[in-house]
Amino acid sequence: MTPHPIHRLDNAVHQRVRLGILAACIGVAKVDFSYLKTTLGLTDGNLGQHLETLESAGLIAVERVPEGRRQRTWIRATARGRQALRQEIAALRELIDGIDGIDGVGDG
Amino acid sequence: MTPHPIHRLDNAVHQRVRLGILAACIGVAKVDFSYLKTTLGLTDGNLGQHLETLESAGLIAVERVPEGRRQRTWIRATARGRQALRQEIAALRELIDGIDGIDGVGDG
Repeated sequence: MTPHPIHRLDNAVHQRVRLGILAACIGVAKVDFSYLKTTLGLTDGNLGQHLETLESAGLIAVERVPEGRRQRTWIRATARGRQALRQEIAALRELIDGIDGIDGVGDG
Repeated sequence: MTPHPIHRLDNAVHQRVRLGILAACIGVAKVDFSYLKTTLGLTDGNLGQHLETLESAGLIAVERVPEGRRQRTWIRATARGRQALRQEIAALRELIDGIDGIDGVGDG
């Protein structure tokens, strides 16, 4: 029996804030902390915490670059992060398509 | 500014096991505990715990019916549960479509 798609949803990626962070990093070389914070509507603390989780899992790389007297934090998805997001999206699609096939959920 | 779709992902529904449970309840009048356990590939304890969370949130209704010397546990999605799943799917679609528009993620 093929395992249900929920078993291909990895919590490191599936958690809603982390899913948003990875999605925002895809298709661009890198994004900075302020951009993520504004785009996703997060606090510094919440964003920082989820970046740490993603970095520990090897899904993003974080680089701090001095800029005058401050520093700018750049975030980019790693190859593993891109692959993990692809797997998440494939599993979500399978799950959603399974629901769509059934009467009356998609259009109400 | 429209809030990012991650803010319409509710953890009660978004958590991967609960998403699978709700998806399995849609389009049918009710499902029984054993069916969910087998379909989703869960242990009794894990399934039971997530059913409690969904029931507390008003997203499913649970009914225990005596059957000979045992009892059968039936689960059905409530109207609120169906609405919550619709909202989750709409937010996921928006998130996924945003990613798809960007080079090279969907097809690798």
